[in-house]
Amino acid sequence: MNLQTALIMLHEKMATAVSSEIDVLREASRHILLAGGKRVRPRLLFLAYQAVGGDDLTSAVTPAAALEILHTATLAHDDINDHGVLRRDRPTINAIWGRTFALLTGDYLFAKVYEMLAPYGAGLNAALAEAVVQVVEGETLQAQAAKAGALDEPTYYRIIALKTAALFRAAARVGAQLGDGAPGQVELLGDYGFKIGLAFQIIDDILDLLADSAQLGKSAGLDMAQGKGIAVAVGGDGSVATMVAPAGVQVDERDPLLAFKQQVLQGDTVGRARRQARRLVEDAVAMLDALPLSEAVDALKALARSVVERDR
Amino acid sequence: MNLQTALIMLHEKMATAVSSEIDVLREASRHILLAGGKRVRPRLLFLAYQAVGGDDLTSAVTPAAALEILHTATLAHDDINDHGVLRRDRPTINAIWGRTFALLTGDYLFAKVYEMLAPYGAGLNAALAEAVVQVVEGETLQAQAAKAGALDEPTYYRIIALKTAALFRAAARVGAQLGDGAPGQVELLGDYGFKIGLAFQIIDDILDLLADSAQLGKSAGLDMAQGKGIAVAVGGDGSVATMVAPAGVQVDERDPLLAFKQQVLQGDTVGRARRQARRLVEDAVAMLDALPLSEAVDALKALARSVVERDR
Repeated sequence: MNLQTALIMLHEKMATAVSSEIDVLREASRHILLAGGKRVRPRLLFLAYQAVGGDDLTSAVTPAAALEILHTATLAHDDINDHGVLRRDRPTINAIWGRTFALLTGDYLFAKVYEMLAPYGAGLNAALAEAVVQVVEGETLQAQAAKAGALDEPTYYRIIALKTAALFRAAARVGAQLGDGAPGQVELLGDYGFKIGLAFQIIDDILDLLADSAQLGKSAGLDMAQGKGIAVAVGGDGSVATMVAPAGVQVDERDPLLAFKQQVLQGDTVGRARRQARRLVEDAVAMLDALPLSEAVDALKALARSVVERDR
Repeated sequence: MNLQTALIMLHEKMATAVSSEIDVLREASRHILLAGGKRVRPRLLFLAYQAVGGDDLTSAVTPAAALEILHTATLAHDDINDHGVLRRDRPTINAIWGRTFALLTGDYLFAKVYEMLAPYGAGLNAALAEAVVQVVEGETLQAQAAKAGALDEPTYYRIIALKTAALFRAAARVGAQLGDGAPGQVELLGDYGFKIGLAFQIIDDILDLLADSAQLGKSAGLDMAQGKGIAVAVGGDGSVATMVAPAGVQVDERDPLLAFKQQVLQGDTVGRARRQARRLVEDAVAMLDALPLSEAVDALKALARSVVERDR
């Protein structure tokens, strides 16, 4: 089975996994799960599985589906906290069903992940559980920084390592474990995943800063729209520029963030952040040379590069 | 080790389990976890463990702590949806730290449960995962009924079976599994747990209807205070009286629910509901006679009866 077929099976597995008898849970879950999304984490899991020699992708479909459902659960709860109205080109659960059902749908998705992975044993579940704890910790640090209206460089890195890179690492590790990779290969692919996770989040933050909602498929610039006034870019020297909207910046009613965006865009902040993300990706790509040559390893390299070349 | 010592170890295990480096997660988690609570689910787990001959309660402490943390996670999220301000005699997380951190603390507690139970294998985790899914489904049905302002008998039973009795069943089953009970004993204790879970929730609903907050240690009468206007009592013949506050009932400012409560209290509705709960408990107690006589079985009988005799 090739990757495309695995992704179709992933879609089916997610749809059937959330077939609750309770209409709102089933419908809201499918609404957000089947809306598309980039499926980066499942792709990472599948390719890591193949890169260590795994030859039956069907055996990786359920864990990959669980991982994507887990990521989606965090999105459902994020959209409550951020008052997001658009996600994966669709209205958020929050916007359609209201906060209570968005919260419960997120909980339902978490519970389903737990149920789906129960048969996979202690090793896989311990690794993934640790990542879930980290994702929540990262989201919490981010909410604290937003509330404080300030963010320093170590905190920014800590946030994106926890909230994004930890799950990328877990995805690659789980794939390598399922494919019976040697311990060193599991570690290596985990580190690769961690690096592209960092790069992915840096690019996400840049897109959130620059893109409009139509292009991004989700509510853009939310951190700033809520008066949090924080944007971040990672400098080429590894430093992080924290951009806090100055009080009293004149806002344009058609785009409340316009003045702030223009201010950021005048310097090279975004360019430097992009270069830093590219460096992380090139590091990750170089690591893969320690693995046997294969189509899967080539695909992992392409996946890494696509992370920094995307525009949504 | 006796039950009292196990409960002290439970307390310590819960405190250390949530020692996140992120202050708000650690503090909010301990705030709600260590506030007391009746610890009914852990007690049930410990006693089921002993009732099938388990002789080392220390081995049951982590699962019992995970189960109590799981229950507490659902409370943290409930308090968001219900706008509760008091829980276990303390202000809710919601009231102190706000909605975003209450939501994240609930997620953190769920993640910790997953992490704590990962080493316990597929059987235990599959059973518990199924219960978690059911709890969320029950909460969702309840929110739907509240929104609709109506509740019929089958739906009421379905709600309390899912949101409460499923986890009581899981607690008893997990205890019996950990104690190496025979499959028939695991089933029997699960059924016992399920019945006292139903009784527990019926009594909870009655207390919520009648008690004031000081006595209950949590915000009382919330379902009605939010204009949901629903209260439920189970009739002696197994029928369920749904009590919806009539539109236009005169409210007393000091107690907005007074008129409604008086209306319910005039009939025998509450008395009938109490009798139904007692019947469930007596059924559960009778089932235990199939187990070998032991102090633990006696304690399970006492636990069952305490469920319907409590006033908070």
